[in-house]
Amino acid sequence: MASPARTLWKRFSSTITTRSGPSKVHHHAPLPDSSFPKGYLVGGVHCGIKKNASILDLGIILSEKPASAAACFTRNAFKAAPVVVSQEVLERGGGRARAIVVNSGCANAVTGKQGLEDAWAMVRATDALLDPPPQEGASETLVMSTGVIGQNLPISKIVSGIEAHSDKAKLGTGFEAWEKVARAFMTTDTFPKLRSMVFTIKGKEYRMAGIDKGAGMIHPDMGPPTSTGQLHATLLGCIVTDAAVSSESLQSALTYAVDRSFNSISVDGDMSTNDTIIVLANGAAASSEEIDESTDPVAYEAFKQELTSFAIDLAKLVVRDGEGATKFVTVTVEGAHTYADARKIASRISTSALVKTALYGEDANWGRILAATGSVPLSALLDPNRVSVSFVPADGSAPLPVLVNGEPEKVDEVRAKEILSAEDFEMRVQLGLGSASAQYYTCDLSYEYVRINGDYRS
Amino acid sequence: MASPARTLWKRFSSTITTRSGPSKVHHHAPLPDSSFPKGYLVGGVHCGIKKNASILDLGIILSEKPASAAACFTRNAFKAAPVVVSQEVLERGGGRARAIVVNSGCANAVTGKQGLEDAWAMVRATDALLDPPPQEGASETLVMSTGVIGQNLPISKIVSGIEAHSDKAKLGTGFEAWEKVARAFMTTDTFPKLRSMVFTIKGKEYRMAGIDKGAGMIHPDMGPPTSTGQLHATLLGCIVTDAAVSSESLQSALTYAVDRSFNSISVDGDMSTNDTIIVLANGAAASSEEIDESTDPVAYEAFKQELTSFAIDLAKLVVRDGEGATKFVTVTVEGAHTYADARKIASRISTSALVKTALYGEDANWGRILAATGSVPLSALLDPNRVSVSFVPADGSAPLPVLVNGEPEKVDEVRAKEILSAEDFEMRVQLGLGSASAQYYTCDLSYEYVRINGDYRS
Repeated sequence: MASPARTLWKRFSSTITTRSGPSKVHHHAPLPDSSFPKGYLVGGVHCGIKKNASILDLGIILSEKPASAAACFTRNAFKAAPVVVSQEVLERGGGRARAIVVNSGCANAVTGKQGLEDAWAMVRATDALLDPPPQEGASETLVMSTGVIGQNLPISKIVSGIEAHSDKAKLGTGFEAWEKVARAFMTTDTFPKLRSMVFTIKGKEYRMAGIDKGAGMIHPDMGPPTSTGQLHATLLGCIVTDAAVSSESLQSALTYAVDRSFNSISVDGDMSTNDTIIVLANGAAASSEEIDESTDPVAYEAFKQELTSFAIDLAKLVVRDGEGATKFVTVTVEGAHTYADARKIASRISTSALVKTALYGEDANWGRILAATGSVPLSALLDPNRVSVSFVPADGSAPLPVLVNGEPEKVDEVRAKEILSAEDFEMRVQLGLGSASAQYYTCDLSYEYVRINGDYRS
Repeated sequence: MASPARTLWKRFSSTITTRSGPSKVHHHAPLPDSSFPKGYLVGGVHCGIKKNASILDLGIILSEKPASAAACFTRNAFKAAPVVVSQEVLERGGGRARAIVVNSGCANAVTGKQGLEDAWAMVRATDALLDPPPQEGASETLVMSTGVIGQNLPISKIVSGIEAHSDKAKLGTGFEAWEKVARAFMTTDTFPKLRSMVFTIKGKEYRMAGIDKGAGMIHPDMGPPTSTGQLHATLLGCIVTDAAVSSESLQSALTYAVDRSFNSISVDGDMSTNDTIIVLANGAAASSEEIDESTDPVAYEAFKQELTSFAIDLAKLVVRDGEGATKFVTVTVEGAHTYADARKIASRISTSALVKTALYGEDANWGRILAATGSVPLSALLDPNRVSVSFVPADGSAPLPVLVNGEPEKVDEVRAKEILSAEDFEMRVQLGLGSASAQYYTCDLSYEYVRINGDYRS
């Protein structure tokens, strides 16, 4: 017999037939074919992990040339099989790789020895698509999986799906093909997350494309493969470019970019066991002089900044599509003693259930922001009399101060409602202690979030 | 014009007219008058902070004799005025006090200089009820406030309410009087939280009474007054006994008890600016030999254990009444390398939005428990192959293992549903690394939590 709570829950669930808040599909739109990096052949198919045959669940990216490769993996102690395997491929290959294979629908996490064998089977099948194939005993494919955990992959379906790509007609180089890959990444995502751009360094033109996925279990903390931590199935992303970048410089630029992008977002404060971001740089652009930090720091800095702002754009898409989210909120903490202090407070505000339900209720409840701010142990003691809080609209109109130097302002509630009813706005906290600042990107906590996650396995 | 999200939110809100889940009023019942400690006169009234005249909003506890006093205050950097003032009274008085005054409806937090003046006004008005009154310039009253923050107290109403207690007919010593005090503590609480007991140390009989309140913004981290941290309005409690205990021993027993009780509960993971637990020991029992750690460690240990188990009972009531909660869940982490490691994991599982929505959905989603476990940095590396997870029913029937030494079990879903549809159960995580263990008490995350907190100020 169902419990009273369960009965009530079922009743509410039945009243919610669609995701709450505005549709987000306008965040996905066609991109010019010419903005995608040269030298990559990509595709996505339905291989049968998911029941519905119109939903893609397997994606492949192949570089025509050997490429530098770098990655950041979550620091979760439970490392899904694809993470273990990708780390090993990267290490053995000395930071070189030519392919990425990804499946959705099953995370291949907590699957023991079988899980490792399955991840290696995906690698080998993708390696076999490369021309020329990798040297005997070597692998050049990085693998990612996302979906339900504790279940084994339907590996023969997946391998068949990979092998089908030996038919080159299944691969392409433009928007249409890339969009298939992006769709193959999706789980609870409501739109595919794909971006591309053309950028210039020292007068030379390069291209970059990026895909990511994620909507729940989003509070990544990823580091380079050598970090002590390890990894459940959720934030996955890849960025590929036709610039030539040395492996070491690619890793160091990625680590910098990930801290300021994917590691600065939160949907629900839960860190996954599969979080992975992979970057390939194949040098297929006409101008393919290798970018390296030690030989040309200026070009490296320019590349690092391009990668970082591109990664921030991709990371923001995940928050915008956060499970049940109706708001996209930037949390800015300024005037901290150190960057680490600013980051800790921004992270704490971004994960506070009370702050996030107030955002859903469109309530300028600065008291909750303050309580969250004060709960973080810092390197310098907070002085309540120096702390100010304001809400900043995204349309460029005047910010609304709600607390100034520790004193509550008389708040114009009509104006507050105006700002908070928008999809986008910023909460800015000024600590008045120093000059360091940090930003986090977060969303609200809605009925819909509870529905999605109270019923995930059903 | 309301945003689409707001409109939707309003629609859902209107469908929810009562708190979800079973009623919790059965957790409050009459207690024998003889179980309340001797030498205390107590009462509660409606003084006018809250609009509804049938709701009590002011409570007073007076000891007829000088008492030892001790307290733990939240480590939040924003310290509400009553916290600042109570710390000062305790410090100046050398760990002695005779009265506690509490109001609900307004937290007197982030209220600047006026807030401090108002808190002192409450202290002075209560001091004036003591017979004999405190010495010139001294204060013997500890003050607590809970409710909305950023608003000033209606201080003249409060002072009149306190003064009304000079009429001794408003004060009592038994259940009826104590229940009024407990009601005066309530904000979003759905039942008054009051417990009493008779206990024996070395053949001598003592009594203890305790009250607490709290339902949201519950994730306390409180330390003794000397700790570097400080305090928003939510977990308040007081425990009084007629045992005689030295001030130093009372503080050290309380600090131990609070770590294992109030500091081991979580409703929403948000730490408040007002969290306060106060203890008084007035020695009014027939047998009033002073208990002190250095002169009689055996008696002290016995007292500390009594205080700790009493504090755990009070703390559990807060979780049981957690905003929107339909479940009371004990999180046990065993086999850790250190107590600190076990505590960190238990705290992380207890605050995970994904774990808590799965609890609401009555879904034995061990993957989320594992992901939360793995996201905590520890003193010893986790070995996934040694980790086991089980659900333990509260009725004494057999536990249900879901993960054994890193391998997922074939779970009997009917049995899982049986256990998870109960109001009470335990999630047990065995790490297999050492012998340290810790427990946390948490609740589920429901639609009702979102409703209560999306609409708090409205």
